[in-house]
Amino acid sequence: MNYEFSARAHTLLSSPLLSIRTQTRRGSMISLAEELPAEELFPLSLLAETASTVISADAGALQYGDPEGYGPLREWLAGDWLRAKGVEVAEGGVLLTTGSQQAIDLFSRVYIDPGDRVLVENPTSPGFLQALRMQGAVIIPVRGDAHGLLPDHLRAQIAQHKPKMLFAAPSFTNPSGILWSLARRKEVLELCASCNVLIVEDDSYGDLHFQRYGEPPARKYPSLYSLENVSSGGHVLYIGSFSKTVAPALRTGWAAGSPELIGMMTAAKQMADWQSSSLNQRLLHHLLDVSAFDLREHIALLNREYNTRLKLMAELLKRQAWKNSAYALPAGGMFLWVALPEGLDALALLKVALSKGVAFLPGPSCSVDGGAGHIRLNFSHPGRDELLLGMNLMSEAVSEFTARS
Amino acid sequence: MNYEFSARAHTLLSSPLLSIRTQTRRGSMISLAEELPAEELFPLSLLAETASTVISADAGALQYGDPEGYGPLREWLAGDWLRAKGVEVAEGGVLLTTGSQQAIDLFSRVYIDPGDRVLVENPTSPGFLQALRMQGAVIIPVRGDAHGLLPDHLRAQIAQHKPKMLFAAPSFTNPSGILWSLARRKEVLELCASCNVLIVEDDSYGDLHFQRYGEPPARKYPSLYSLENVSSGGHVLYIGSFSKTVAPALRTGWAAGSPELIGMMTAAKQMADWQSSSLNQRLLHHLLDVSAFDLREHIALLNREYNTRLKLMAELLKRQAWKNSAYALPAGGMFLWVALPEGLDALALLKVALSKGVAFLPGPSCSVDGGAGHIRLNFSHPGRDELLLGMNLMSEAVSEFTARS
Repeated sequence: MNYEFSARAHTLLSSPLLSIRTQTRRGSMISLAEELPAEELFPLSLLAETASTVISADAGALQYGDPEGYGPLREWLAGDWLRAKGVEVAEGGVLLTTGSQQAIDLFSRVYIDPGDRVLVENPTSPGFLQALRMQGAVIIPVRGDAHGLLPDHLRAQIAQHKPKMLFAAPSFTNPSGILWSLARRKEVLELCASCNVLIVEDDSYGDLHFQRYGEPPARKYPSLYSLENVSSGGHVLYIGSFSKTVAPALRTGWAAGSPELIGMMTAAKQMADWQSSSLNQRLLHHLLDVSAFDLREHIALLNREYNTRLKLMAELLKRQAWKNSAYALPAGGMFLWVALPEGLDALALLKVALSKGVAFLPGPSCSVDGGAGHIRLNFSHPGRDELLLGMNLMSEAVSEFTARS
Repeated sequence: MNYEFSARAHTLLSSPLLSIRTQTRRGSMISLAEELPAEELFPLSLLAETASTVISADAGALQYGDPEGYGPLREWLAGDWLRAKGVEVAEGGVLLTTGSQQAIDLFSRVYIDPGDRVLVENPTSPGFLQALRMQGAVIIPVRGDAHGLLPDHLRAQIAQHKPKMLFAAPSFTNPSGILWSLARRKEVLELCASCNVLIVEDDSYGDLHFQRYGEPPARKYPSLYSLENVSSGGHVLYIGSFSKTVAPALRTGWAAGSPELIGMMTAAKQMADWQSSSLNQRLLHHLLDVSAFDLREHIALLNREYNTRLKLMAELLKRQAWKNSAYALPAGGMFLWVALPEGLDALALLKVALSKGVAFLPGPSCSVDGGAGHIRLNFSHPGRDELLLGMNLMSEAVSEFTARS
C-alpha cells in the first residue's frame, strides 16, 4: 500500500548515521564512528553471577516493575550523589530510562512543541539533535571555546531568540571533548536561571575523566545540576548513563531534576514503553550494591585504558597525511574531534574511507548546520591493533585528497 | 522555575491509570486493575541458567546491539511464523521493541500527524489510546459485537472520516476479550485494503487461548497479518509480545510488517532509545532456541491456570451484588469486561473499591468516549486466594451502591 508517513518522519532518515551503522556491521569494516565502550573490559563474570543470583532469588525480577524504574537502584543513585558530591536528590526526582538517549527523547516530547526555540552547544550529540529535530524544535547553536560556552554569545542568543531551553554537555562534550571551566559553569547556570531557560545537561561522559601519567590528578568540576542543587531552583535536568561505565546492553540511563519535571517525564515514559527492563535495573543494583564490583575502581581501569588508546591515536595523527589538520587533546570522553585540512569535505572523505574499510562520523551529524570541515574519531572501542589499522586506512584516505592539492 | 510543558503533555496525566498504579503499589491493595501475568509461573530456573550461560559466553552480550534488535531472535520469530502459520516474514520486516507498547508508540510517531483521523475498535487498550492521544490523533470509535468489528459501521466510518488507519486486536481484545470470527477478519481486511486504510493489529493476547475441559480444542483463527501475508499487500502492521507468554521484565515485543514501514519505525527506534536491551533479547533467544524451555508447552500451562482463575472469578460474579451486571465469558486473554448495573458509575465505584483495598480499571480508560458503565477485571495475576478476597471486596463495594437503589 501507499504509506503516508508523518510530516517529520523524514527527519529520521536525513542522518548518515543509519547507513554508516549498517555498513560497519557488515563484516570487516573498522569503525571509528560509533560510541561504543571497550567490551573486553566489561565485568562479565561478576554480571553472570549476579544474573543467576538475582533471577533465582525472586520471581519479581521478571515481572513488570515501576515506570520510574527499580526503587533500590534509584535510591542507590541518590545515595551515590550524596556521598560523592554532597548533592541531595529530591524524592521523586529520578527517572530510569533506556539509556541517556531515551531521557532526551522523553524530555523533548513533554517540553518541546514544534516551532519552539532551543539552544544547543554546537557541535553536539548527534542522537540528541535527532530527538530535537523529530520534535520540530527550531535549533539555535551557541558557540564555545576551549573553556566551554561563550557567555556573551549565550546572552545574545537568549535575548534574540527567547529560547525555552539550552542543551549542553559541560564534561567532555560529544564530539568535541571540551571540559568546561568552573567559572563558565557558574556563568552559564546563572544566566539561564535568571532568564528562565531550562538547562538539559548531558553528563554521559563525565566519569571518563583521565589522569595522565606524571601529571597531577585531573580536576573534577561539579555538574551544573550539582551547582544549582544547593538552592534547588529546578533549572537543570541532569542526564546520566551506565552505558559507558558498566555496560550498554543493560540499557540504563537516568534523568534527575525537579519532581514536577521528572513526574511529567515518567508519565511520558509509561506511555512510550511502560518501563525499561526492571530485570536489568535489578542486575545493576545487585552489581553495584551487593557484589564485589567497585564502580570507581572499574572507571579508573577504563580511564587508564582509554587514555592509552587516545595517546596512540594522537601519535598516529602526527603522520604526514594529517599535517594540516588540527585537534585539541581531550582530558576524557571517547572522541577526538578533528578539523580537516582546509577544503577537505568530511562527507567526501567518508566515501573514500568506507571504500577502504574504515568508518568515522562526519561533522555534519554533530552540527546544527555546517560541520563539513570536521570529523569525529572514536578511540574507546577499537583495540590497539584495530586502532593502528584503522588509522592507517584513515591516513590513506586523507592522503588521496591532500596529495592531489 | 516555571515549566512550560508541551501542548499535549497534559494528555499523559488525564488517565486515572497513573494514580491507580501508584496506589496499588502501596502495600496491601489487591489489584484487579493491571495487565500482569502470574509470576509464580515464570520459568525462573531456566532463565537463571540461561543468563549465566549467555553472559559468560560472549562479551558481545553486554555491548550495544542493532536498533532493529538481536538478529537470531528476529530469525527465530520468522521461523516460528513459517512453521506455525505458514507465513513468510520479509527480510527487514521485523523490529524488536520494548514491549508492544513501544511498537504502537513508534508507529504513531512515524505515521500520525496531529489532526489525522484514526479508527479504533472500541473499547480498546488504554496504553494504545494514550499513545494515539499524545500524537494528537483524532480518534474515531468503531462498534463491534461478539464476533468482531461490525463491517457496516466500519464502512460508514471510513466513508465519513477518511481515516489513515484502524487499530484493532482481533484475538482477545483488551479489555473485552472478544475473539473475532474468521468471516469478520476477512471482511475487515478486505474493506481496509480496498480503501488504503492501514491496519495495526495487536496480537499481544492471541496465544492466551484457553481450551475448556470437556470441550473440543479452541478454534484458532489466523491473524489479519497472516491472512494478508499470502498476497503481501503491506496493509497490516502486526504487533506481538513476549510479556504475557514468557516474562514482562525482558521487555521484548515486536512489530512485523512491510520492510518500508518497519524501516521507518527502526529509524524512530534509534532516535527514541538507540535499541532495546540486546542482553534481554539474547536471553530470550537462548531460552527459546537452546534451552529445554518449550514455549508451546509453557503457554498451555499458562492457559490451564488462567482458565481456572477465570472460572473462579465468573463463579464469584454469580453473587447477589452482581445480579444486574453482565459480561461474556472470554475464551482467552487476561480480562473480564463487566457491564455494571444501570446507573452505577465506574469511577464512583473505583473510589469506594480503593477505600476497601481493591483496584480495578474503570471503563473510561479503555474507551474513546464514555465507558463509565463498564469495568475491567484482571484474572491472570491474582492467585486464587487473592482473587477470592479481591472479589469479596469488589462485591462489598458494588453492594454499597446497589443496596441503596
